[in-house]
Amino acid sequence: MQTKKNVAIVGSGLVGSLLAIYLRKQGHSVTVFDRRPDVRKVEFSGRSINLAMSNRGWKALGVVGIEKEIRKLALPLDKRAMHVEGEPVYYQKYGEEGEAIYSISRGVLNRKMIDLAEKEGTQFKFEEKVWEVDMPNARLYTGESEKSNWEEYQFDLIFGADGAFSRVRHKMQRQSRFNYSQHFIDVGYKELTILPNEDGTHKLDSSSFHIWPRGNFMLIAMPNLDGTFTCTLFLPFEGEVSFESIKSEQDADVFFETYFSDIKDEISNLKKDFFRNPTSAMVTIKCFPWSYYDKITLVGDSAHAIVPFYGQGMNAGFEDISVLNEKMDKYGNDWQKIFEEYQTERKPNADAIAELSYRNFMEMSSKTADPKFLLSKKIEKKFAQEHPDLWTPLYSRVTFSDKAYSEALKIGDYQREIMDEVMKIPNIEEKWDSREVEEKIISLIRK
Amino acid sequence: MQTKKNVAIVGSGLVGSLLAIYLRKQGHSVTVFDRRPDVRKVEFSGRSINLAMSNRGWKALGVVGIEKEIRKLALPLDKRAMHVEGEPVYYQKYGEEGEAIYSISRGVLNRKMIDLAEKEGTQFKFEEKVWEVDMPNARLYTGESEKSNWEEYQFDLIFGADGAFSRVRHKMQRQSRFNYSQHFIDVGYKELTILPNEDGTHKLDSSSFHIWPRGNFMLIAMPNLDGTFTCTLFLPFEGEVSFESIKSEQDADVFFETYFSDIKDEISNLKKDFFRNPTSAMVTIKCFPWSYYDKITLVGDSAHAIVPFYGQGMNAGFEDISVLNEKMDKYGNDWQKIFEEYQTERKPNADAIAELSYRNFMEMSSKTADPKFLLSKKIEKKFAQEHPDLWTPLYSRVTFSDKAYSEALKIGDYQREIMDEVMKIPNIEEKWDSREVEEKIISLIRK
Repeated sequence: MQTKKNVAIVGSGLVGSLLAIYLRKQGHSVTVFDRRPDVRKVEFSGRSINLAMSNRGWKALGVVGIEKEIRKLALPLDKRAMHVEGEPVYYQKYGEEGEAIYSISRGVLNRKMIDLAEKEGTQFKFEEKVWEVDMPNARLYTGESEKSNWEEYQFDLIFGADGAFSRVRHKMQRQSRFNYSQHFIDVGYKELTILPNEDGTHKLDSSSFHIWPRGNFMLIAMPNLDGTFTCTLFLPFEGEVSFESIKSEQDADVFFETYFSDIKDEISNLKKDFFRNPTSAMVTIKCFPWSYYDKITLVGDSAHAIVPFYGQGMNAGFEDISVLNEKMDKYGNDWQKIFEEYQTERKPNADAIAELSYRNFMEMSSKTADPKFLLSKKIEKKFAQEHPDLWTPLYSRVTFSDKAYSEALKIGDYQREIMDEVMKIPNIEEKWDSREVEEKIISLIRK
Repeated sequence: MQTKKNVAIVGSGLVGSLLAIYLRKQGHSVTVFDRRPDVRKVEFSGRSINLAMSNRGWKALGVVGIEKEIRKLALPLDKRAMHVEGEPVYYQKYGEEGEAIYSISRGVLNRKMIDLAEKEGTQFKFEEKVWEVDMPNARLYTGESEKSNWEEYQFDLIFGADGAFSRVRHKMQRQSRFNYSQHFIDVGYKELTILPNEDGTHKLDSSSFHIWPRGNFMLIAMPNLDGTFTCTLFLPFEGEVSFESIKSEQDADVFFETYFSDIKDEISNLKKDFFRNPTSAMVTIKCFPWSYYDKITLVGDSAHAIVPFYGQGMNAGFEDISVLNEKMDKYGNDWQKIFEEYQTERKPNADAIAELSYRNFMEMSSKTADPKFLLSKKIEKKFAQEHPDLWTPLYSRVTFSDKAYSEALKIGDYQREIMDEVMKIPNIEEKWDSREVEEKIISLIRK
């Protein structure tokens, strides 16, 4: 057991709340600051994408015994439902029998996590804005505005769990030799909703992750417990078909009817949301170091914000907490060692999932409608099923295992090279499931 | 002629001062803010590397007629003097007859540039700290501290010339979709000085850029008009031989005597500087966009800080001003258009010189002592001399021309591929100056 510390967590989001639970279980005194109001008392933002909890997330919840309770809030999705233009819907299983990702509304989950953290004895200070961090002394300064009178708080440790635009990291960034990058993609997103049928049931299959790929844009839908779907429209900010180009209700009508005619019954609702909800940007943030001596460390998005296209943002953040906890078990009261080993182990994994997520952005929007890409996926899948000892698909490695992301990236690159070779076989379209192709793959693996 | 504007420049460094001169020549009212004291009234920092003015810099000075006056402050260097361990000094000409880079002390040049800008009617406000920028309204706020009472200034245009850690950019960075990165290298630097002989003459050849390459570290020396050399020691921050490992005067003795014994007469002075002067970090900073509508734009290091290993930091910043001026001539009072075309044209060139400078960091410290590398340079040089129509060396393209940096990078990559092929010729060491090698290069170019 560690010596009890007086700990501050900046940010009451998913990762901050989970960390609070972990630290309370270790007996530390925990105060969570958030500049926003208590999410349990306000309507949620209208700018969120549904979460896809997978292996790493469940594992982190399991350690502190809250996995079961969270499962009640989630719907398992065992497949993609692809709504390609002019074709019937087709389904792609995510993994083996019993493997699924779990759709959860961010608002619902965050409220629950705060409840659980509070039950463990965490003190939450909502609508209290942190403006300054005295890093060597682990002091926080809060107040109405940057120029108002500030309140000073003294802690032993401070955790920055304050998201992609972290104030804590912002302070670290002013140090010399702090590496940092923020890269926005040219695509934005908007939250939309598909309402339930009149009897409260889901309008679309509720055990699928629905995708309408449309080249350089796409719509996705993930089910909620209340019969609704949280949809996300990913669309370039500028250009011919873009958020910028949809100015009027009539433009929106034309847009949805042209590209998403199979859900046109929903258009009136989608259209309302379209103009009510904000258009949000997506960013990849990388930085290093994440820690400052034995005083401060960053967790979750504040250390490594990623684009949402692998459904791993929350999972990676929760895994940070698992890893921190392992280091706490290993090093006891040596917080500098805990923070150092945590950041050294996590950094390459955070970079790897950032890269994989960025690549999936390309893949999901454009390649999921490309017959050649789909064929290569089909070949890979068949081979993986017949030779599970020789081939675990990248998606499974990321989603259904807790092996390092960096390893998944490396093996994934090597598998891609093999599949590029396989796709060069003449007439691969006809003989994709032949013995020849199977042997070719085996020989390439052996090489 | 443009309509007169009320313009603020944040930063009184080299680029800010040059921009002030340009804008005054156009008749604008110009106020320059700097948080530091007037550099003319204080001792210079002891953390600067001598500047190497080359073609782009001279050209920008020429447009506003101050080239001649600045030349008086500079010493031409037409070659590198390589001090390889255990070998006699050897010399490498930079370019053709008459081509040289010009060594200038940063302090001396900056003082002169401020004098010249003041003479043109620029108002300088030293020790006035800008804390906030109201971008849509082009307002600046200054004061003692971030939390003190601020003075408000209203301008028509604001230029951020406030260097790598720009406050103006810092404000732009909080916008959504602002891409930004800062990447520090693991090597630091320290300014050292070699004093003149007793008769005031230079201790080393004063028309050479002196380099002592030592694998992963190096010393350089550039002459000043007063008989001194400004030296820069580039050394890893951590590791076996590093700034961290040199703790005492005795450590410094051993270090200089082990690695720089040919200048050991200077060691006592170098040693004094070593502990008096700070160790500085080097960073590559990239961002985009550089401009905010017709109100604000970044110039020089605030837009594109680079590592100093190509001697192009100041030259690139001065070239920004030349390009801005071209756009002012082209678009008159349409400042949004001026800023847009300026940033669109400059961004790829800034990225290219950042890449080239980073590569030169590798090259100067390690490869300049590698016989294979030197042979390839010798072959390239001979070929370029015999076929100036077919081959301009990369260094000349960057240093002695004003063609786009991005073009230099592209052609440089292609030339490197050719040289890689050439170096594969068996026994290249013996037949490097043969007809066979020459014909091989020509055939590779034709391909």
